[in-house]
Amino acid sequence: MANGHLPETDTAAQMASIVISVDAMGGDRGPAAVVAGLVLSVAAFPKIAFLLHGNESELGPMIAREPALAGRVTLCHAARVVTMHDKPAQVMRNGEGTSMWSTIESVKRGDATVAVSCGNTGALMAVSMIRLRRLPGIKRPAIASFWPSRNPTGFNVMLDMGADIKADTDDLVQYATMGASYARNGLKLARPRVGLLNVGTEEHKGGAELKEAHDRLVAFQHTGDFEYVGFVEGSDIPSDRVDVIVTDGFTGNIALKTGEGVAKLVADFLRQEFNASLWSKLAAIMALGTLKRLQKRIDPRRANGGVFLGLNGTVVKSHGSADATGVAAAIRLAYQLAESGFLERLAARVASAEQAGQDAAAKGAPAGAEGGTTE
Amino acid sequence: MANGHLPETDTAAQMASIVISVDAMGGDRGPAAVVAGLVLSVAAFPKIAFLLHGNESELGPMIAREPALAGRVTLCHAARVVTMHDKPAQVMRNGEGTSMWSTIESVKRGDATVAVSCGNTGALMAVSMIRLRRLPGIKRPAIASFWPSRNPTGFNVMLDMGADIKADTDDLVQYATMGASYARNGLKLARPRVGLLNVGTEEHKGGAELKEAHDRLVAFQHTGDFEYVGFVEGSDIPSDRVDVIVTDGFTGNIALKTGEGVAKLVADFLRQEFNASLWSKLAAIMALGTLKRLQKRIDPRRANGGVFLGLNGTVVKSHGSADATGVAAAIRLAYQLAESGFLERLAARVASAEQAGQDAAAKGAPAGAEGGTTE
Repeated sequence: MANGHLPETDTAAQMASIVISVDAMGGDRGPAAVVAGLVLSVAAFPKIAFLLHGNESELGPMIAREPALAGRVTLCHAARVVTMHDKPAQVMRNGEGTSMWSTIESVKRGDATVAVSCGNTGALMAVSMIRLRRLPGIKRPAIASFWPSRNPTGFNVMLDMGADIKADTDDLVQYATMGASYARNGLKLARPRVGLLNVGTEEHKGGAELKEAHDRLVAFQHTGDFEYVGFVEGSDIPSDRVDVIVTDGFTGNIALKTGEGVAKLVADFLRQEFNASLWSKLAAIMALGTLKRLQKRIDPRRANGGVFLGLNGTVVKSHGSADATGVAAAIRLAYQLAESGFLERLAARVASAEQAGQDAAAKGAPAGAEGGTTE
Repeated sequence: MANGHLPETDTAAQMASIVISVDAMGGDRGPAAVVAGLVLSVAAFPKIAFLLHGNESELGPMIAREPALAGRVTLCHAARVVTMHDKPAQVMRNGEGTSMWSTIESVKRGDATVAVSCGNTGALMAVSMIRLRRLPGIKRPAIASFWPSRNPTGFNVMLDMGADIKADTDDLVQYATMGASYARNGLKLARPRVGLLNVGTEEHKGGAELKEAHDRLVAFQHTGDFEYVGFVEGSDIPSDRVDVIVTDGFTGNIALKTGEGVAKLVADFLRQEFNASLWSKLAAIMALGTLKRLQKRIDPRRANGGVFLGLNGTVVKSHGSADATGVAAAIRLAYQLAESGFLERLAARVASAEQAGQDAAAKGAPAGAEGGTTE
């Protein structure tokens, strides 16, 4: 659809294109950073095409200036923008006509496979919830992110990073199912190791919902096709003990921002010390390649993109302050999830977990009661 | 008391000595690391003296081998040791006769001003609670730690780091009072800036107890003699926006361990990159001084020692894996708190906060009801 006016010879490529719906507005750096991200993305993925949502008179000239984007971008005009200060409840009521709403709407209609936005997280989750709706059986959707780690892939998956501020036992068990599915598809791990974040690894630690979730996950790990490693601590988040870290959105958000803050503190201290004397400045010049490789390994832009899990559609939330590199990373993630058919796989896992839960419940009931389940 | 046999001329110094009660057992590295920490401490503080608790037949020869400790250490025999695996409830019931119990008992009897232990945190808090008891009006004591930051002092204070796994509105407000008092004494700040940890700085973020605590702190900051800066995020913990970060013990523990894990990850990545090639190894040699200064700035041993606040006595919890440098840092902290009369200052702040709360409540009641308050 994005290339409707291309010559006949391109039709095959066009048919196979993967369409991503992108919100051009609402990020801290404005639409220019988003368009620059699109330019990087088309170079990397020949099959990618975009529906770009925002102010047409502002975006049109930007797109026209980029020959690489010719025929790859369809503009979808939306006059209004959701700002970082808008409250989610307001956007749910009055969000129609914003670029964010329009971006999600394209996924709902099936015109695009995955949506990407740098906008207000709470508003994006609210709009995604009311337009895409939750997968059957899911009470609380979650945001999953990659986290730099000592694992061979270089990353762990952690959720919930702040879709909601709390999670009960059922939610935590569903997060484990969804996080494992994301790790299977996003990190190519056949049987991910799942841990439950707590203040200690001993079984008596933590609140009641954590202990219950622990017992449920011990029993459920085989059905869920993951390995449950038990409670993990904050120090395990960047470790190679675990691939998926499950926690509530309050704790996940605090841990994520604490980790970002500490990594930045260490990097700033390193810079200060290398600037402290003429000798250390000379050493810094010699160590330039080394320091650049370090910077790349801890660069949060490389892992940019929280994924909303548990909805009838895939939404990637890019960091609000993402630059071209960050936007391109979020789009790469969206492309990979679209290409691998992630949503269908996730939905199948959630459905089969639901089924297993109903079967387990039915075993405790009279034999005749089992007929109520499907599959 | 530690120098009972010294000649007459030393009596004045002896009278002025500051006695610290130290648990020699229960740390991961055993009593040798603790004794090595004492040796570092006596060199730094001429007035310091120790009551050292543990197995006499093991400790006696160790002390005898260190001339610097002659006349500065009184051994207090305790046959049993609390291990890292003992549950707090068990230790509360059966802990008498352990070195940990004996260490706290010396503070209760007034023989020492501050206690230091590298042992099991949960057990140490449990023993401290039942032997020292809570300050009047305190429901949940807290553990406060220093955190490396961009502030001129190089540190922030954060609490609760895991004394309990939850905190209600009253607890959070008391943590603010106690944390501000600790920052005044430990960081020499006349009017500390206090922030409440949340998932965003906007007023509508977070759960009900956070919103209520926010409103209470806005009203209470002048009486409490601190500046309340509102909600802060995980990324603000190592910043210069705030001096005291208030949160519940579950979140505080996760944030602390996440920060430690991320700092270690970055340091390990840096080491790997400097070892990657001959050239980078040469650069590392040139940058040796710079890297050592960085290591010192982020060395967690420098800030070793969580302080239990809200009890009738001061207890410093050293990291379980502390070496001589770490133990000496915990003892330095204990010494400074003893010397400054911190416990009396903290108790006075808590009492005046209680009074202010009662006064505020009384204003809402009939005039005659005010007579019930003291002071």
